[in-house]
Amino acid sequence: MEQDSKYMDLALELARSARGQTSPNPMVGAVIVKDGTIVGMGAHLRAGEPHAEVHALRMAGEKAQGATVYVTLEPCSHYGKTPPCAEALIAAAVRRVVVATLDPNPLVAGRGMEMLRAAGVEVAVGVREEEAKALNEVFFHYIQTRRPFVTVKTASTLDGKIASFTGHSRWITGAEARAEVHELRRQHDAILVGVGTILADDPLLTARQEEQRFGSQPVRVILDSQLRTPLDAHVVQNADAKTWIFATDTAPKEKQELLAARGVKVITTAGPIRVEKVLDTLGELGITSLLVEGGQEVNGSFLQARAIQKVVSHIALKLIGGSSAPSPFGGQGFSTMGEAVQLANVTITPIGKSDVQISGYPQWEDQM
Amino acid sequence: MEQDSKYMDLALELARSARGQTSPNPMVGAVIVKDGTIVGMGAHLRAGEPHAEVHALRMAGEKAQGATVYVTLEPCSHYGKTPPCAEALIAAAVRRVVVATLDPNPLVAGRGMEMLRAAGVEVAVGVREEEAKALNEVFFHYIQTRRPFVTVKTASTLDGKIASFTGHSRWITGAEARAEVHELRRQHDAILVGVGTILADDPLLTARQEEQRFGSQPVRVILDSQLRTPLDAHVVQNADAKTWIFATDTAPKEKQELLAARGVKVITTAGPIRVEKVLDTLGELGITSLLVEGGQEVNGSFLQARAIQKVVSHIALKLIGGSSAPSPFGGQGFSTMGEAVQLANVTITPIGKSDVQISGYPQWEDQM
Repeated sequence: MEQDSKYMDLALELARSARGQTSPNPMVGAVIVKDGTIVGMGAHLRAGEPHAEVHALRMAGEKAQGATVYVTLEPCSHYGKTPPCAEALIAAAVRRVVVATLDPNPLVAGRGMEMLRAAGVEVAVGVREEEAKALNEVFFHYIQTRRPFVTVKTASTLDGKIASFTGHSRWITGAEARAEVHELRRQHDAILVGVGTILADDPLLTARQEEQRFGSQPVRVILDSQLRTPLDAHVVQNADAKTWIFATDTAPKEKQELLAARGVKVITTAGPIRVEKVLDTLGELGITSLLVEGGQEVNGSFLQARAIQKVVSHIALKLIGGSSAPSPFGGQGFSTMGEAVQLANVTITPIGKSDVQISGYPQWEDQM
Repeated sequence: MEQDSKYMDLALELARSARGQTSPNPMVGAVIVKDGTIVGMGAHLRAGEPHAEVHALRMAGEKAQGATVYVTLEPCSHYGKTPPCAEALIAAAVRRVVVATLDPNPLVAGRGMEMLRAAGVEVAVGVREEEAKALNEVFFHYIQTRRPFVTVKTASTLDGKIASFTGHSRWITGAEARAEVHELRRQHDAILVGVGTILADDPLLTARQEEQRFGSQPVRVILDSQLRTPLDAHVVQNADAKTWIFATDTAPKEKQELLAARGVKVITTAGPIRVEKVLDTLGELGITSLLVEGGQEVNGSFLQARAIQKVVSHIALKLIGGSSAPSPFGGQGFSTMGEAVQLANVTITPIGKSDVQISGYPQWEDQM
């Protein structure tokens, strides 16, 4: 069993290496072991390309016969863009398959294992299950809710301010923390802000590192009920990433056409823009992960809607003060401390010398 | 030299053991070593009682002759409540004296070492100097400024709120963090709040542990310009600690007399209560360390006055939101992020499972 954990750790490491490039698919890693020797390794690298097991089986060749296969997620049992991996494993005559966790889709969970067992392959489930679920927290959430996994990223001073009383906010955190944000953006399918941020900062909202943008760019999503986003804004002019704007159906039709002519997708909703509706729509459009980088109103509306799966809080180790200086989560807020939402699985990590990152998972009562 | 550091570490440990009980004196430890053997140890335990060197010399007896003495602060050279330690060391015929740091008072710094050197004793200064200065940061600040060392203690949610939008604030942090606050109180000469805290929470403001109050209690200081503190408030009725109230000279004279009749010292100032004036007065009254546990207005006024030496921030790992929910430092605040005051020597310590403590030292530009 100790050997099982060791090989599963390696498979998880392989899976992890493809972070940010597999969406809408999960990260998956596989390791094939025969007579105490690794004979194959693989990871799923990109949607449409072979699954981890297939890469590993190709590497192993005939050595897969009678071998043990470690895979971080239950092998698929259906014909999608690729044939079912369970079949491939059976065809390769492996002796044993160890998986970390079952498929998150309750309609197919366990089917892959069943196919294997029916074909006489020995199976085991649950090795490093917690780690495997954490690795694909986004995919699991998306499959089970059909809404993107929402991470709210904030930057504030130690005294909880995201700007001075005058609105000044550049910069709260240091260069290292800001570089982290670009890596965080890269790992998401979409980034969401309110029109206030567009009007105040005119950001590019792309994922960049050392002046270079990353290959694939998250979609820029803007909540802008009255379509106040200027036509010369970076998010309209710059073509490195797609831009989608949510507006109400009372927004000026003319502005909508001008934006559309510049390649911006305008999504209108009847009545005020509601967080739940935005998430449903983004889910339908294939967005599995959403990074919210809002001001206090946007962040506050996600908090009030209990629509936050993860919080990444960058805290600058400085004080600015100001009773009218804004905080990361506005809106009305909860009434009592007892209603405040507790974070679980919190990690605290210093970033450089002047900032600290605190991240965790809000524990909503009605959580799945 | 390695031996010097080792013995000085022990002397620092002895000094530290008396934390919270030596005010207005510093914590001092001493170790006497002869032929590689510890022959005496001592710490200063309480003002008016013998200094660390005297305790250590008594323990060593005749073995002090020809020995090396490690002491965390320069031996005194003047007749105070006790005769000068430099003389006692000379009389004991020690061979060598190693000190961590000189006396912080520029008028006498170095005199003790001079007396020793003139008497033929070998001297060394600077072993573990940084640690020794940090240990007595309060004493050094007080001696050099004649104002108390100010620590502002805050408790807020991860999103920077000290209460909900309705004003609800019990409790922000967990039981372990709240117990830490009582230990922090014990280490201070005085605790300061605004009258708003008295009216809202009617706190006892004493240092307690497991239902037991500590032996010596910090003075309760209340900023209350119009003397709105009720006569039946805990801080008036409870006699475990002294209560001093700062008011303006326009406050009702009658209320002042009623409070005085109940043992409360009322200190009036001409014009509005200014932080600088409060600190000068507290310094004159022998308060070397002040723990500010204010709401946003009191904390904000200390920030604006740049009168904070240390911040201890308890952050509860939860989110409450609310654009009108208060943050730890109110007032106007600084205008730009560049003006925000950076903290140095920051320590980040989880407290229990639901809170984290972040403490550090604001780096004011005009710092001594």
